[in-house]
Amino acid sequence: MVTLALERTRVVLCATSHPGNIGATARAMHAMGLARLVLVAPRAYPHPEADALAVGAVGLLRAAKVVPSLDAALVGASLAIGFSARPREFAGAARSARQAAQEAVVHCASGEVALVFGSEMSGLSNVELARCQIVATIPGEAGQASLNLAAAVQVAAYELFVAARGDGVWTAPRFEPATLDEIAALYSCAERTLIGMRILDPQHPKRLLARLRRLFARTQLEKEEVNILRGILARIDQLLARRS
Amino acid sequence: MVTLALERTRVVLCATSHPGNIGATARAMHAMGLARLVLVAPRAYPHPEADALAVGAVGLLRAAKVVPSLDAALVGASLAIGFSARPREFAGAARSARQAAQEAVVHCASGEVALVFGSEMSGLSNVELARCQIVATIPGEAGQASLNLAAAVQVAAYELFVAARGDGVWTAPRFEPATLDEIAALYSCAERTLIGMRILDPQHPKRLLARLRRLFARTQLEKEEVNILRGILARIDQLLARRS
Repeated sequence: MVTLALERTRVVLCATSHPGNIGATARAMHAMGLARLVLVAPRAYPHPEADALAVGAVGLLRAAKVVPSLDAALVGASLAIGFSARPREFAGAARSARQAAQEAVVHCASGEVALVFGSEMSGLSNVELARCQIVATIPGEAGQASLNLAAAVQVAAYELFVAARGDGVWTAPRFEPATLDEIAALYSCAERTLIGMRILDPQHPKRLLARLRRLFARTQLEKEEVNILRGILARIDQLLARRS
Repeated sequence: MVTLALERTRVVLCATSHPGNIGATARAMHAMGLARLVLVAPRAYPHPEADALAVGAVGLLRAAKVVPSLDAALVGASLAIGFSARPREFAGAARSARQAAQEAVVHCASGEVALVFGSEMSGLSNVELARCQIVATIPGEAGQASLNLAAAVQVAAYELFVAARGDGVWTAPRFEPATLDEIAALYSCAERTLIGMRILDPQHPKRLLARLRRLFARTQLEKEEVNILRGILARIDQLLARRS
């Protein structure tokens, strides 16, 4: 499935030190339907460690563009979103990663978007951030704790995917639910059997049946489960009949 | 800042093959304010590669509990959320990572939560998933593309953090906005100067001034910016005066 926002978004890594992070970024993008990676002056690329961490995304990695400057990486894009972990003086708009992803998807209706990440050691420089209209921050524990570069790309790409395609997930295979009359019949059998077992005193039913009804009401019983329970009750009935 | 949901949530890694993923998981947790890591029968731990990738989270890594079984890892927890990339027959509730995080935060008011992850190669087994009440899926491109284990933990921990603490981010230092009368005065100066420059014909103003007003209206001019623009206009006025 092709989605405009994912097609029109590039990921730009500036001055990456560790080739492993480039490979892990490719994998993170690929899992989220992004395909366009641009590398600004990487320290070591191509590199076997990048290939090793790309796993299924080696094709994406091979197609990455290598350029000498951020300006070259931004050609054709009309919205640049810079990711920054730390508060900084920035004249542009400060957004959370989620808000930025939503704005990116809106923007992709009319233009291209760049998600821009700085180097592992120091993040985006002020000069690089000045090229961005939005600075996005991934919420997290303040202080020394920081995300790994590829982990930050993973969260950003995930938020873009969810903003573009929604949060829908595969739903479990639906089993056929039991009908209310099947469940009512189950309760009748259960009541009879419980009386036979002398667990339930028909003169003083107390709250036992109500508790059982409440338990099963919460589970939304399936047809097959009702059959299993009725089978168990029938077996108890047999045992009770044999004893008497 | 201590948050109940983050304090009461443990991350459980089952049968992890690569010690690097254990270290990267510790780093991902630490960045999102999670502290409790439980390792079920890891293939290699402790391991220098785990330490290397934990970066600032070596303390968290050292405090990890190693247990022989998932049941041992779940002791004390009352909600287990298993993460799975693929559709599977599962009788529990299927949720997106975001929905699951929201349910986890609600649950933490009364109990403890475990976020459970399977091995790199095959994910959670059906036996392991059967221990979980919720199966959570991280939305993403269907097919072969999959998240790295630590990347999946990063997204799950990030969603928990946002569900617990909200999406608020640091906001850029506010510069003092220009007042409307300062902006009106700027436009008067600009009009006079543009006429002096013969860019604007006062007999046929066309739409030039309206376009400029529209441009600056969008930017929400700051006091300082108005001063800069007035300085530029004043300099042009000087040049015009010298020429005439």
